[in-house]
Formats: sequence, structure tokens, C-alpha cells
Amino acid sequence: MKIGIIGSGMVAQTLGTTWLGLGHEVALGTRDPQKIDDKKMMAASLREWRAQTENRGRIVTFQEAAAFGDVLVNATGGTVSIQALEQAAADKVGGKVLIDVANELDHGRGLPPRPLASDDRCLAEKIQARFANLKVVKTLNTVGAPVMVNPGGLAGGDHTVFLSGNDGGAKAQVADLLRGLGWSDILDLGDISTARGPEMYMGLWLRLWGVTRTPNVNVKVQRAPKGG
Amino acid sequence: MKIGIIGSGMVAQTLGTTWLGLGHEVALGTRDPQKIDDKKMMAASLREWRAQTENRGRIVTFQEAAAFGDVLVNATGGTVSIQALEQAAADKVGGKVLIDVANELDHGRGLPPRPLASDDRCLAEKIQARFANLKVVKTLNTVGAPVMVNPGGLAGGDHTVFLSGNDGGAKAQVADLLRGLGWSDILDLGDISTARGPEMYMGLWLRLWGVTRTPNVNVKVQRAPKGG
Repeated sequence: MKIGIIGSGMVAQTLGTTWLGLGHEVALGTRDPQKIDDKKMMAASLREWRAQTENRGRIVTFQEAAAFGDVLVNATGGTVSIQALEQAAADKVGGKVLIDVANELDHGRGLPPRPLASDDRCLAEKIQARFANLKVVKTLNTVGAPVMVNPGGLAGGDHTVFLSGNDGGAKAQVADLLRGLGWSDILDLGDISTARGPEMYMGLWLRLWGVTRTPNVNVKVQRAPKGG
Repeated sequence: MKIGIIGSGMVAQTLGTTWLGLGHEVALGTRDPQKIDDKKMMAASLREWRAQTENRGRIVTFQEAAAFGDVLVNATGGTVSIQALEQAAADKVGGKVLIDVANELDHGRGLPPRPLASDDRCLAEKIQARFANLKVVKTLNTVGAPVMVNPGGLAGGDHTVFLSGNDGGAKAQVADLLRGLGWSDILDLGDISTARGPEMYMGLWLRLWGVTRTPNVNVKVQRAPKGG
């Protein structure tokens, strides 16, 4: 599969490396592909990333990544995602699946960053409203990058990832990609409005990170049988 | 122990019955103790509740409950909690522990109710700011009443409850009460500002309730060893 990732930070690089290892083709879209020597926060420069992938990883513009992918991923910072997707001309790529893994965080007031999500403010819903052509699926925003691509590295993989989206076929395709990453407990919450839940959860995740001092943390949803 | 519960709905009744069964003394505070035949939403009338407790359960005013308890519990609806605690004269009861189990929910727009919590809006912080004399401990707001008092009834008790509060002694006392209810995985998140996390989590809980169709649901925090 061709995967076009909008964004080039730690999450984008980690997903990209992993999907290349699984045999997919990957293009990382960045605002300015000339700046491949800039150090990224908590990540390698793009030149280093490309070298790690034995030059199989493509480094392209936002717009080229959006055109390249059969499936797109929003791995930009949540507060700049709409702008980045506009630069990517994501409204002109037809009915592609967009996997939204981003969170809106305000890093301007120190640690922990402020989670901006609320029942009135849901990034995935905003993206779906702005880009009606895309099939937006929210997932993976509730875990850090190392857990995204190696769920088995935490509690033997016994924890949960969520899916929200309006298109059942798109969610099935994303669930396949998640199983490819090693996820087994994939919980479909419903339409894109249900992404409010996992986005608001970021408020708790940041505190779990604070108290455990590791991003290697996630939750397992323990539920009774239906109707139980 | 004498436990004064501010509130008389399903959560208050469930906690009260359970604590009476464990040998504590319990007073349920209600706005108008004369109305003991009113049907409560999803709960018994207070006359029925008192009969269930073999008349050991006291039904009193908010103010009498606040005066009665060695430990107080806020089990009112989150949007009216401050007002109820003001009616209880909770500012005049000295340095008592207040266990805040409430969530601010807007029931005015149908199901699911709208969770009002955000990083800017935390009920427990508001209560602590308004009632500086109290030692507010946020806990149990992340689960439904049946799970609060019977954690072993879900996944053998293998799931997590959170603590937030400024006073370590108060949190230790509340942790003892939680262990008395059967809780074993009790995670102290830090000071009262960390209650933003469990309160925002309500956005996810409501979606879990929607998809599992049962309030018998909770999360287990899977975490690596510290520094892992």
C-alpha cells in the first residue's frame, strides 16, 4: 500500500519506518522538503530518517504526500493540522481515507502541555467538516509513538485502541493496518463525533504520563459482555 | 466512621447502602428531607432506600449531612455541586475530607449527555478553590455506581481508580475507603489539578457506555515499570 503521511515529526517518522518495514511504500510530507537537516523535536532530522530507511523513505511536500498515498495520515501537530491539510490540497485528492492520529495541544505554558479538546472542540470532526471528500478515521491519538507501532511491548499487547469514523469500509481498512502493527483490541466507538472521547482522554493520558514518567502507557477497556 | 453524603440520587444511595453494610454510619443529605416519596431518576425513593437499609440510613438536610460526617462525599450532580455545598455550609465544617465523585454533565440535549469538563473547567478544582477549608479528593467519578461499590464484579477487579488531591493524609484515608470497597489498583495522579484528567475522561466513558450498552465498564491502566 502507498501511505502518504502529512507531517514529519516523531510520530510521522516512527509510523513511516514501521510501515516501510512491513512492505508498504511511504512518503513523508513536510512543509519545506529542503530543510532535511533541521533537528526535529524528539526526532531525527529527515536526512537521518531517510538514511535509517535505507533511502526507501520518500521526503516530499505536503501536497505530494497527499497525492502519493492510497491512504493518508495526519501526523501534524493538532493545532496546525487544518492549515497543513489545506497546504496539502487535501480537498482535491478525492475520497481517500485519512487516518487522523493528532491531538490539539498547547505547548505555550510549559509542562504538561494543555489539552485543548472538549465536547465542543474535536479536531477529527473539524477535519471531516472542512474536507468532506475525505473519509476521516480517528485512531492511535491515545498512545505515544512507540506504543502505536509496538503494542506488544506494553503488557503483552493487552490494551485498547479506538476507531471513530463515518465510513465503515474506511474503518475496516484502518483496522487492518492496526492489526498489521500488532493491535488486537480495536474498539469501534461509532461515527466521527465519537472522536471527542479519545481526544478528551488526552487530558488523562497527560497525567498518566506525568505520574508514570513514561509514554509507554495505555488503557485496557474492561467491559462486561453486551447487555451484561 | 461517620460518612456524610451530600446528595441522594443513585450514586449516593448505592455508596450509602454499601458503607452501611461495611459497618459505617451514613447520612444522606437531600435538599428537602420531607420529600422522601419522590422517585429519583434511576433510583429508589428515599423512603424505599431507608427501608432497604433497615432504617439505619439517615435522611437529613445537606447541612446536617455536612455536620454529621467525619468524611464527606459530594454525590450531587456536578452542575449543582457548588450550590449544594453552599447550602450545606461546607465552608463552616472545618478541615474535613470531601470525596468528590461528581461529573459536570449537561442533560439538556438528549443522549449521550454532554460532558462539560475541559482543561479550563474542572469541578474538583472549583470546589477546592471555593471551600479552602476542605481537603478535596477526587475519585470514583470515572465509573458508574455499580462498579464503584463492586469493582470485583468487572474483570475480576483488574481495573483502575484514580486519586487527585492536595493533601496526602486525606488521599491515604480515601484509599483505605476504596480498598474497603474492593479496589486494589488505586493510582494517585497528584494534586487536585490532576483531576482534570479523570474529569475529561468522562468524554470517553460516555462513548464506552454508548458502544458497550452497559455502565459496567472501566479501564485498566497498563504501564511499564517506572523509567521503563
